Amino acid sequence: MKAVVYQGPRTVAVQDVPDAKVQEPLDAVVRITTTNICGSDLHMYEGRTAVEEGKVLGHENMGIVEEVGPGVTRVQVGDRVSVPFNIACGTCRNCTGGWTSFCLRTNPTEGMDGAAYGYANMGPYDGGQAELLRVPFADFNLLELPPGSEHENDFTMLSDIFPTGYHGTELAEVGPGDRVAVFGAGPVGLMAAHSAFLRGASQVFVVDKERDRLALAEQFGATAVDFSAGDPVEQILDATDGIGVDRGVEAVGWQAHDPSGEEHPELVLDNLVAVVRAAGSIGVVGVYVPEDPGVDDPSSAGKIGWDYGTFFTKGQRMGTGQAPVKRYNRQLRDLIVTGRATPGLIVSHEVGLDQAVDAYQRFDDREDGWTKVLLKPSA
Amino acid sequence: MKAVVYQGPRTVAVQDVPDAKVQEPLDAVVRITTTNICGSDLHMYEGRTAVEEGKVLGHENMGIVEEVGPGVTRVQVGDRVSVPFNIACGTCRNCTGGWTSFCLRTNPTEGMDGAAYGYANMGPYDGGQAELLRVPFADFNLLELPPGSEHENDFTMLSDIFPTGYHGTELAEVGPGDRVAVFGAGPVGLMAAHSAFLRGASQVFVVDKERDRLALAEQFGATAVDFSAGDPVEQILDATDGIGVDRGVEAVGWQAHDPSGEEHPELVLDNLVAVVRAAGSIGVVGVYVPEDPGVDDPSSAGKIGWDYGTFFTKGQRMGTGQAPVKRYNRQLRDLIVTGRATPGLIVSHEVGLDQAVDAYQRFDDREDGWTKVLLKPSA
Amino acid sequence: MKAVVYQGPRTVAVQDVPDAKVQEPLDAVVRITTTNICGSDLHMYEGRTAVEEGKVLGHENMGIVEEVGPGVTRVQVGDRVSVPFNIACGTCRNCTGGWTSFCLRTNPTEGMDGAAYGYANMGPYDGGQAELLRVPFADFNLLELPPGSEHENDFTMLSDIFPTGYHGTELAEVGPGDRVAVFGAGPVGLMAAHSAFLRGASQVFVVDKERDRLALAEQFGATAVDFSAGDPVEQILDATDGIGVDRGVEAVGWQAHDPSGEEHPELVLDNLVAVVRAAGSIGVVGVYVPEDPGVDDPSSAGKIGWDYGTFFTKGQRMGTGQAPVKRYNRQLRDLIVTGRATPGLIVSHEVGLDQAVDAYQRFDDREDGWTKVLLKPSA
Amino acid sequence: MKAVVYQGPRTVAVQDVPDAKVQEPLDAVVRITTTNICGSDLHMYEGRTAVEEGKVLGHENMGIVEEVGPGVTRVQVGDRVSVPFNIACGTCRNCTGGWTSFCLRTNPTEGMDGAAYGYANMGPYDGGQAELLRVPFADFNLLELPPGSEHENDFTMLSDIFPTGYHGTELAEVGPGDRVAVFGAGPVGLMAAHSAFLRGASQVFVVDKERDRLALAEQFGATAVDFSAGDPVEQILDATDGIGVDRGVEAVGWQAHDPSGEEHPELVLDNLVAVVRAAGSIGVVGVYVPEDPGVDDPSSAGKIGWDYGTFFTKGQRMGTGQAPVKRYNRQLRDLIVTGRATPGLIVSHEVGLDQAVDAYQRFDDREDGWTKVLLKPSA
Repeated sequence: MKAVVYQGPRTVAVQDVPDAKVQEPLDAVVRITTTNICGSDLHMYEGRTAVEEGKVLGHENMGIVEEVGPGVTRVQVGDRVSVPFNIACGTCRNCTGGWTSFCLRTNPTEGMDGAAYGYANMGPYDGGQAELLRVPFADFNLLELPPGSEHENDFTMLSDIFPTGYHGTELAEVGPGDRVAVFGAGPVGLMAAHSAFLRGASQVFVVDKERDRLALAEQFGATAVDFSAGDPVEQILDATDGIGVDRGVEAVGWQAHDPSGEEHPELVLDNLVAVVRAAGSIGVVGVYVPEDPGVDDPSSAGKIGWDYGTFFTKGQRMGTGQAPVKRYNRQLRDLIVTGRATPGLIVSHEVGLDQAVDAYQRFDDREDGWTKVLLKPSA
Repeated sequence: MKAVVYQGPRTVAVQDVPDAKVQEPLDAVVRITTTNICGSDLHMYEGRTAVEEGKVLGHENMGIVEEVGPGVTRVQVGDRVSVPFNIACGTCRNCTGGWTSFCLRTNPTEGMDGAAYGYANMGPYDGGQAELLRVPFADFNLLELPPGSEHENDFTMLSDIFPTGYHGTELAEVGPGDRVAVFGAGPVGLMAAHSAFLRGASQVFVVDKERDRLALAEQFGATAVDFSAGDPVEQILDATDGIGVDRGVEAVGWQAHDPSGEEHPELVLDNLVAVVRAAGSIGVVGVYVPEDPGVDDPSSAGKIGWDYGTFFTKGQRMGTGQAPVKRYNRQLRDLIVTGRATPGLIVSHEVGLDQAVDAYQRFDDREDGWTKVLLKPSA
Repeated sequence: MKAVVYQGPRTVAVQDVPDAKVQEPLDAVVRITTTNICGSDLHMYEGRTAVEEGKVLGHENMGIVEEVGPGVTRVQVGDRVSVPFNIACGTCRNCTGGWTSFCLRTNPTEGMDGAAYGYANMGPYDGGQAELLRVPFADFNLLELPPGSEHENDFTMLSDIFPTGYHGTELAEVGPGDRVAVFGAGPVGLMAAHSAFLRGASQVFVVDKERDRLALAEQFGATAVDFSAGDPVEQILDATDGIGVDRGVEAVGWQAHDPSGEEHPELVLDNLVAVVRAAGSIGVVGVYVPEDPGVDDPSSAGKIGWDYGTFFTKGQRMGTGQAPVKRYNRQLRDLIVTGRATPGLIVSHEVGLDQAVDAYQRFDDREDGWTKVLLKPSA
Repeated sequence: MKAVVYQGPRTVAVQDVPDAKVQEPLDAVVRITTTNICGSDLHMYEGRTAVEEGKVLGHENMGIVEEVGPGVTRVQVGDRVSVPFNIACGTCRNCTGGWTSFCLRTNPTEGMDGAAYGYANMGPYDGGQAELLRVPFADFNLLELPPGSEHENDFTMLSDIFPTGYHGTELAEVGPGDRVAVFGAGPVGLMAAHSAFLRGASQVFVVDKERDRLALAEQFGATAVDFSAGDPVEQILDATDGIGVDRGVEAVGWQAHDPSGEEHPELVLDNLVAVVRAAGSIGVVGVYVPEDPGVDDPSSAGKIGWDYGTFFTKGQRMGTGQAPVKRYNRQLRDLIVTGRATPGLIVSHEVGLDQAVDAYQRFDDREDGWTKVLLKPSA
């Protein structure tokens, strides 16, 4: 089958690789209909992770079940399914507690809980930017979708970024009437803004400097804040009678940068502490890492000197980490089916698998309008 | 001042009564701008409660602060305010725990916790269907509104029915993606449907037989179920592949009746138990009473033989009771201000205080289109 | 193998039956070391359910894993395990939401969600009052215990009654500082009292009329209330300055009876409504049924005319149903291991499987001191 | 009256000052029976805050109501009361939401929400290390205690450290069965350990290097970890099969130091991140500050470069800040009354007000055995 293979910093290739197969009794194989390029694929693409050369990338996958192992009793061949990026066993303590993002059994990497497809440090699993994908513990992991092809570009957001944005609002404890600030209008930030309104937010500010992304934020009903036009904290305080917001979502990560492009890993955290009210809460789904091979002192990346004294003085709370997709994807699917959620609004490009190399490069270059790219292996 | 006074079953009058005044250091007096007739006013009007003759009615009040006592430090003369129907001390155990609907100090009635304006069994307080209203513990009870007259017909729903409908969805634990059935498309049921969507419901069924009310439910995005056209449980099961709903809201009360108009107090509870899934939950904000002077054996009213065995077998949960308005009204106000909530949609009639007698009669007759009546004392 | 087989009302027999075997890839077979007789076994024994003749009884099971199917990867032969009474698939919507007591896939009975071993209406599964037990979806269902034989009589409570009593306190929302009333000092009621203290209750009243059971309640730190010595509601109100309790637990069920032994199915519910404060909550784990073959009009059993009007007026909440054991058993196991929980205190009798017939009869007769009976198949 | 007055770094004096009086209609004056010296008093004593010279210290107060203002209707002269250290208005948004530690109205300091008695940056209020104390908004703030003198040394912990320790366990989401690590065996850490068990923890590790404090931790049932004897993270991992704990509580603050006494503000946070499991949670009640006048660059104190990358990778959550005492003190009082909580166990010294100067010095020197000092103004 054809697949997108990582070959080193800023180099991917579409290659022939062996077909994905059922290897264990609980496996399924899914024929991919849509697989997205994610912002975190770019972390790997840019050489700022320890991902192995030869790995098939792609953790945002959906498709049709092609084959199931003998222990699979719920999912059936022909089912249309969304594949959560988390690979979870379904029976360990964390999985049964709802924390599939920290499965204790699927990732053999020392000291790491939680596995994923085609991802650095998250186990030996190939990704789904390919024609076929092997899915372990299929009955537990796969989410059924209505048959057919309707809502394909909405449903494809269920494997990662829609639940991830939603998780940001869950960690931030967003509730009815709240005012919310989302930092970052990339796909995850936009999904956080959409989710905040689904949870009843009265007003959502979205902070970014890219005009195309801010325009999308406004399409979701949010108030755009352009940080290249002035301090975003002041802009939000001005818009809220100096009170600030109840909740904040971090959707940027450790590569946070100022308008000039210089990286300041503490920048967004400091802004959130400043703009969220006392006793408010913050959800962090932008990625922070213990080590960054892309900087001089890799181990320095995890030590970020942000305004912790003010965080404590304001009595704020903060939740972090990768989303346990399975906790949210069924509910979000149902909102798509009834038309109340429309995450597919952010899709900017749909291309065949053979155009993946070009798509990676242009998405990484943040070319204007390249918000979200879908790969269609069967196209 | 002029006020609407209860004079006996199906008799109210607009009379001159002494002006409401500051009586205690923490009192305020509010000049009423809008005061609504509530469905529970009709329970009193119809003689099915123990309300005293001579009581000024009206617990859905808003207006402008006219005067404050010497211990009032937060609220100021001239503030535009919503008055929660609960009269709460703000310092007892229930008030500080968020249960202002069960204040331990403001209702001297033996065995009853919780007070209200112009209401049977809920203390000696006159209501606000009048020019002026005395508000005890004003700093605690009053909710500030933006100055001016904007959103008046939305804000007037904050004193009772919007928070009450919302409370139904809170008791029913409605969350994102849920399917919800609301029984009763009166004002409270409509507010419950509106609230369910604000909390992220994917689909809301509203059950009633009045076409004007069902049409309003559809305006809020709900799916109308006409129980005069067939068993509502079957209709909802048919619409959900036999699965039913995750959550149910009771917005009818003990006067539940079949399409012919005959009362069956267990009818709606049984329907809810049947239509809500195993492990689902039900919020009851329709009023049930321990005694009903309107029936032959008043004490029989509280003993309702509903399908409790099935309720247990399905492992359902149920929450009940009057809403603690203050827990929700600020958040709902903010949703009105930003335009995301539009409860005023249900207003059908606005009349002067002097037309109250006619309005009571026609609202009690359920005249076609008389969904929600506002009295404007200064009109 | 030998097993306890139901043969009709008040008749069980110890018989030779075919050995339990692995039938599906995800099955395990457990060699039973301890299996308890439960109060709900007596509902079947007394002929008040629809259980089939020939069924092997027993849903409170623990033992050593004897064999596993090819799809079992977590549990290993030789593991000492507790078997939750719920048979859950681990992958349906209810199981992944934590409601294993309402599994959507394991019970083929029309209209019933949730399966169990050796139980009326809960699927075709034989029970564990036998030498061997087949456990479906073993990786999901089985709880590992420390190897050896320590704490055997504590751990054996993890399959049902300790989590069930705990579930009563969870449904009742028991929290630190609360005063709690538990009705029924049978094994489940005693476990609810124990659980209430583990959750931080300041005082727990336990209501029963059997002196041996009340003495056990006192051993767990509770305050005994003998309802044969006077109205239990008055006794508790007297002990609480007329305030009552914050939370109530129902651990009696529809066969509730007065001191004379006459059944009044509404009795305990009415007492709970009376003794729990306004805005308080009630957890019901005593069994209520839609139909009772043991009474003249079976379908009348589910319609219970309790004080619903007062329940609403007091704004109380109520949760019901069978416990999802898996949600609590790991935590309770850990409390046993560190010595903070001692549920085995209630064990009154340990006998071999061959004495099961006699044990059933004496336990059903409520012989003095027969609180909790364990069967030891290998004894 | 006599009072303990701050006069500058490491200098306090017992002086005659004007009697505390009722100044506002909602004030009460309390005659102090017991007032404690708190670890955070030492932050001020050591000159590491901006507290004004001349301020009467003391925020851990209890006593008898001596006088009330005309707007006080609940509390009565002669009541025995505990005074929460938070001064809260009871009517602002944060107070009514349960966040009395961040009252929006009582602290005029720019940018600071929340007031306290005798405390740096927390408003112009004198403390209670004196004969009399003025209490604003008395009906809201004061907690009634049983009359008499019983449990005095337990009840005196209700004004601050018992609720503060408890808040640490609330922020850390401690629940039944959890394993917990508490860093710091000072009074707050010991109260956190006590609270963790009240919430059902199965095992609590307490980390410190002072033997007298570790011995007290063991009296509360905890497992002592002496960090001067080896890396505490390794010790706890060794004791938990390498798994670590579910929850962590920080009860040290920014002056965290290694065994040699050198300060490392990131030290305890890093240990907590390392020892808490993935998806676990951390409560921080040890004080961190935006600025520290006691170090060369005051503004550097708030920027702490701890292991944030690992915190994110493990998906941990963290809550922080001063405790809203009123949310917990009633429940904890009730646990003292029934004998289930015994916080007074930590009291090491009781002295008259005139011995306060000596007591401050010896407590600040961490003299062996000086765990918790009570001042008795009437002694």
